[in-house]
Amino acid sequence: MNHDCPLCQDVGGELIWQNDFARVILADEALYPGFCRVVLQQHVAEMTDLIPADRQQLMEIVYAVEQIIRSTLQPHKINLAALGNMVPHLHWHIIPRWQDDPHFPAPIWATTQRDAAHPVTAAQLTALKQQLSSL
Amino acid sequence: MNHDCPLCQDVGGELIWQNDFARVILADEALYPGFCRVVLQQHVAEMTDLIPADRQQLMEIVYAVEQIIRSTLQPHKINLAALGNMVPHLHWHIIPRWQDDPHFPAPIWATTQRDAAHPVTAAQLTALKQQLSSL
Repeated sequence: MNHDCPLCQDVGGELIWQNDFARVILADEALYPGFCRVVLQQHVAEMTDLIPADRQQLMEIVYAVEQIIRSTLQPHKINLAALGNMVPHLHWHIIPRWQDDPHFPAPIWATTQRDAAHPVTAAQLTALKQQLSSL
Repeated sequence: MNHDCPLCQDVGGELIWQNDFARVILADEALYPGFCRVVLQQHVAEMTDLIPADRQQLMEIVYAVEQIIRSTLQPHKINLAALGNMVPHLHWHIIPRWQDDPHFPAPIWATTQRDAAHPVTAAQLTALKQQLSSL
């Protein structure tokens, strides 16, 4: 627990699932519906700061989220990233990407190329949340 | 093997280590000395297209590279990413980040904030390559 860390102090998005080890949140990113984050509950910066069993446990949650995003939203591509330059508390971005999304084929951190999000229906988002909540 | 895929057709950087399953290359990124990529030898797009044992095998190489980058270059942070929007052939970016690097604390795909790379010595790069080559 780090008192200056936003991911120790707050959930960081819409909480969809959690256990003692990690949580899954829906990121509050209007241009990227279905963008999820897997956040370690503990304040640790790097994958190699974790013991191998914990690295694997964290990635198994990341893969489960990726699988559910793929089956419910059918994106063209999945982007996975653990950066943590501003918030050095392990969190994985799992980002559904479409050819008509605001940055494709560039990373979402590059300059925007289009104005609007790829359309995702309310039914798709509901299915995503339902499946994630029973991880 | 995909005849239109640059990572099927070429190594994609300076080859440091490989086996039948994956290879480690030093990226040709002047602003990011020590930037490595772990490239699957097979043309597969997503982590969840691999069987779980192969996902784990790939990540163990990523962690080994991360560990060696950390011990030889002592960066402030490691960034891990598997994007593949332009080249949908699994490859992990393992990027050493420093507070004085061209984009810190933003992702390396954002707008540049500084002109020059963080200084890395020839001895550090030699140690990095030597340790990676005996993975």
